[in-house]
Amino acid sequence: MPYVNIKITREGATPEQKAELIRGATQLLVDVLGKNPKTTVVVIDEVDTDNWGIGGETVTVLRRQG
Amino acid sequence: MPYVNIKITREGATPEQKAELIRGATQLLVDVLGKNPKTTVVVIDEVDTDNWGIGGETVTVLRRQG
Amino acid sequence: MPYVNIKITREGATPEQKAELIRGATQLLVDVLGKNPKTTVVVIDEVDTDNWGIGGETVTVLRRQG
Amino acid sequence: MPYVNIKITREGATPEQKAELIRGATQLLVDVLGKNPKTTVVVIDEVDTDNWGIGGETVTVLRRQG
Amino acid sequence: MPYVNIKITREGATPEQKAELIRGATQLLVDVLGKNPKTTVVVIDEVDTDNWGIGGETVTVLRRQG
Amino acid sequence: MPYVNIKITREGATPEQKAELIRGATQLLVDVLGKNPKTTVVVIDEVDTDNWGIGGETVTVLRRQG
Repeated sequence: MPYVNIKITREGATPEQKAELIRGATQLLVDVLGKNPKTTVVVIDEVDTDNWGIGGETVTVLRRQG
Repeated sequence: MPYVNIKITREGATPEQKAELIRGATQLLVDVLGKNPKTTVVVIDEVDTDNWGIGGETVTVLRRQG
Repeated sequence: MPYVNIKITREGATPEQKAELIRGATQLLVDVLGKNPKTTVVVIDEVDTDNWGIGGETVTVLRRQG
Repeated sequence: MPYVNIKITREGATPEQKAELIRGATQLLVDVLGKNPKTTVVVIDEVDTDNWGIGGETVTVLRRQG
Repeated sequence: MPYVNIKITREGATPEQKAELIRGATQLLVDVLGKNPKTTVVVIDEVDTDNWGIGGETVTVLRRQG
Repeated sequence: MPYVNIKITREGATPEQKAELIRGATQLLVDVLGKNPKTTVVVIDEVDTDNWGIGGETVTVLRRQG
């Protein structure tokens, strides 16, 4: 029954990679806590780099600075 | 003052349906807990089917399997 | 498959009231969007009044002024 | 190490304004709690006015009513 | 820079199990998307069984029905 | 109408500090985007150090390593 929310910047994750994140997060809950995978929900949010900040700067600016 | 977040897959919910969800969730808090509807906030997130997983599979794959 | 998160202040909601919120939110998704109730998840967060603010004031202060 | 999520309606916030929100929220955590800005994360969600409700009405409707 | 939120029912997860969830979720983002583990944040919320519903019922009731 | 969620580790923030976070976050939205403070909601979540991870380690372990 767990619910997992993964937030990443929108920088080209493919459908295959997102499917792998969903598979992996679900399996993690099975392995560590014995949770039922059938009712485990994983939601991925892709966030524009203008809308994500770390260290007080947007990722857009951090990427430009390399 | 409650805050309600409803996450659904992005599969064509209309503005009318979303307005109904907002009305219904607000009324639920009034009916059950006597909350003030004026400061009750409801936010709906529509999530791509590639980004939503249940049972370790994306909804995109589940819809294809019917 | 929807996921609903309801945040309320921790001010004595009973188990029965919380069960009613869960039932009502689940039914709302069935009624408005035809969602499957079996995989609809509702999570209620109860937040201390010191940790909830509106209008720039904590609810603790607002209740005192109330 | 704090994590801040700011949800606003999608009504034309500019990249500069969003950078200012990120800077300001990060600084707030430094000023009030002495948190390390380097690991402070701020994520801004912009939500369509059809998907945001207050007082049981969508913001789309409220804006129309002026 | 990803942010992962794992919500589980409060049913006795040990500190070791929670550390394993944090390690596993962080590694997943490294393996699938090449993310930097140093800035990957994982937050686990443990939710009372009275406050978690699936299929319109609280987990408290579901556990009792076995 | 904005909604701000601030997640911090539970390490002794006082009611006064939390009130300051609420005041500051509300004012930030007024200053940057001209939002109405009356309907701006701020919710603070305090998370146990066992339940917060960065760099694949719990904060409990990181604090011990100093």
